[in-house]
Amino acid sequence: MPSISHRGAALPASPIRKLAPLADSAKSRGVKVYHLNIGQPDIRTPRIGLEALRSIDRPVLEYTSSDGLLAVRQKFVDYYRRFGVSVSPDEMIVTTGGSEAILFALLSCLDAGDEVMMTEPGYANYISFAQQAGVKVVPIPTSIDNGFALPPLAEFERYITPRTRALLLCNPNNPTGYLYSRQELDQISEIVRKHDLFLICDEVYREFSYSPEPYTSALTLPGCEQNVVLVDSVSKRYSECGLRIGMLVTRNRDVRAAAMKIAQARLCPPLVGQLVAAASTDAPDSYIKAIYDEYISRRDLLIAGLNSIPGVFSPSPRGAFYTMARLPVPDADAFCAWLLTDYQYKGATVMMAPGSGFYADPARGRDEVRIAYVLNRDDLSAALEILARALESYPDRLR
Amino acid sequence: MPSISHRGAALPASPIRKLAPLADSAKSRGVKVYHLNIGQPDIRTPRIGLEALRSIDRPVLEYTSSDGLLAVRQKFVDYYRRFGVSVSPDEMIVTTGGSEAILFALLSCLDAGDEVMMTEPGYANYISFAQQAGVKVVPIPTSIDNGFALPPLAEFERYITPRTRALLLCNPNNPTGYLYSRQELDQISEIVRKHDLFLICDEVYREFSYSPEPYTSALTLPGCEQNVVLVDSVSKRYSECGLRIGMLVTRNRDVRAAAMKIAQARLCPPLVGQLVAAASTDAPDSYIKAIYDEYISRRDLLIAGLNSIPGVFSPSPRGAFYTMARLPVPDADAFCAWLLTDYQYKGATVMMAPGSGFYADPARGRDEVRIAYVLNRDDLSAALEILARALESYPDRLR
Repeated sequence: MPSISHRGAALPASPIRKLAPLADSAKSRGVKVYHLNIGQPDIRTPRIGLEALRSIDRPVLEYTSSDGLLAVRQKFVDYYRRFGVSVSPDEMIVTTGGSEAILFALLSCLDAGDEVMMTEPGYANYISFAQQAGVKVVPIPTSIDNGFALPPLAEFERYITPRTRALLLCNPNNPTGYLYSRQELDQISEIVRKHDLFLICDEVYREFSYSPEPYTSALTLPGCEQNVVLVDSVSKRYSECGLRIGMLVTRNRDVRAAAMKIAQARLCPPLVGQLVAAASTDAPDSYIKAIYDEYISRRDLLIAGLNSIPGVFSPSPRGAFYTMARLPVPDADAFCAWLLTDYQYKGATVMMAPGSGFYADPARGRDEVRIAYVLNRDDLSAALEILARALESYPDRLR
Repeated sequence: MPSISHRGAALPASPIRKLAPLADSAKSRGVKVYHLNIGQPDIRTPRIGLEALRSIDRPVLEYTSSDGLLAVRQKFVDYYRRFGVSVSPDEMIVTTGGSEAILFALLSCLDAGDEVMMTEPGYANYISFAQQAGVKVVPIPTSIDNGFALPPLAEFERYITPRTRALLLCNPNNPTGYLYSRQELDQISEIVRKHDLFLICDEVYREFSYSPEPYTSALTLPGCEQNVVLVDSVSKRYSECGLRIGMLVTRNRDVRAAAMKIAQARLCPPLVGQLVAAASTDAPDSYIKAIYDEYISRRDLLIAGLNSIPGVFSPSPRGAFYTMARLPVPDADAFCAWLLTDYQYKGATVMMAPGSGFYADPARGRDEVRIAYVLNRDDLSAALEILARALESYPDRLR
């Protein structure tokens, strides 16, 4: 029997999904599970998108061009203009989710053995894509104690080596909910220009920016025009996670040409998803506004609730719909598993993503969890009560 | 300005799509282009699939599990049973097209620097996926002169080194249309067992097997249960190329576990495509039979037509809907480009995929093209006439 690859064996299981079998088992015992582990919003997809889906009337569900339908990319030109970003259709490649855009960016910008810097804790799947692309992740540590702010410039530069080729930034951040300030973005701009790095910026939570200042896209940073590779997705914005439609946007023609060759190998992004996503860019402002208000109220409820539980601490996120919380437990992996295997309160329990999976060094973040506030307020309240009571009952709770 | 990666720069452009800008330019001049370059069937998607698309009634287009919806995988259990293949839903991962299944298989089975054997000429995008995965392609040469039959076992074994980890086989073959005989499959089975190799078998053209014998899936080869990783797709079978729904099937639990971790990183395959593809497995036998008959008549027309053009030779394929043809030209790349830039007959021309792109060594196959017979017979006849007349007019034609 042949053996699998070392990389296949070494890949970490997704912290977001690895406990899914335990959750399935809990459900099969009749326990209700509140899913705070995954960024699957309960928000309705915009009506205009669902109507576009129902009105597809084609005799053949055929390939599109590898960079996506031109008409779709043109809709996104209009979309980006609303954020002060001026790009043309031939600066975009429609991808199969933001996930694929990340892989395309890493393969196009870095060679195997090159280094990519990422803030830590970071989106766990970045580490998987880096491993697939054979590139080394260099974590830039940030801490829950100051709300996950960026380290100062001098500290940042200590992580740059001759193999450093890119900085991968998620803004607003998953898993921390951190929204980078204009000053921090200017600092990053300075670093990438000074060291001739690519800035791969994942802006899939652009609409979820809870700040009075307008959102600053990396594509608007002066002097970085050739450095920035934007990763985008309609998944969260329009509650269309299942469509698998994302975008890679760059003004760098060499990156675009390399990414196009990778895009051609996989033929095309999903046709149906492209049509629905393009239509969804015409969702009324009221749709986005309602979601925005809803998430702010959920965030406020969640953060107040978490910080009122003895021993629990979470900074208040200013973006996305996640927060990292510190729990009074020695090993959040064990606690999250215990919640699914051994605990229930009034027939229900809570599923969270253990924090360790968001760190390159799994020894870090052992007492943290990522919580996605993608449930309505009643469910969030119920989940908070379960968490508080579970911590009281947990045999290994730190006192 | 940062430089792109060497691998990004080195990736070959797709031979199937690289001439697309020339075709666009021809069309903008009002020239009709017969597309023989790409495997986009003109066949209608099954009615039952299109009905499933129109009847999707979900308020949220959400993520599915990373291995695809269980109900979808169960439909494919039934589908495979019709080919004598007995597999369970937890031996499958629904992928974003067969393309993604190939990448998952390479990443799971091979480490960077390992070698994968492939018959040559071969599907061009395999080479791209191998480069993405950092694995080395070892071509097993086959020749148009004997219709692209496999070399004998002893010759095959000469290509095996200590780094050889897998054999990637496409059956029926793209681009040659070759259908491997039972005897050849038994030979391959012997090799993979003897040398403890993975057999990654791409069977996306399973239905397009023009032989009286029943189709033999690699999953039915005795003794290879732990070696075989099947790559599949609904793209060609149901004319659903745009759905991007494929499948990785393996009984090897380690491979499945490694591939699942990669699958989790990209979250899930497209939801809508899964629903349509699953419904399409209930397409009536008459749908498949009509397509089968249609392709056989197209093949017969095409091959007779090609071989009647002076200096042109093509063996008769027994599977898929491609054939390789040898043309009386010194450089088929130049000829295919010339057809789009400098030639027209009655306002129309032909687009074909230059053969060189299907060889790891682009010096090979210089006088060959791949032709996809995905057009109706009238259009194929018109395309053949254009090709015959173009060869008469071509300044560099070999005499």
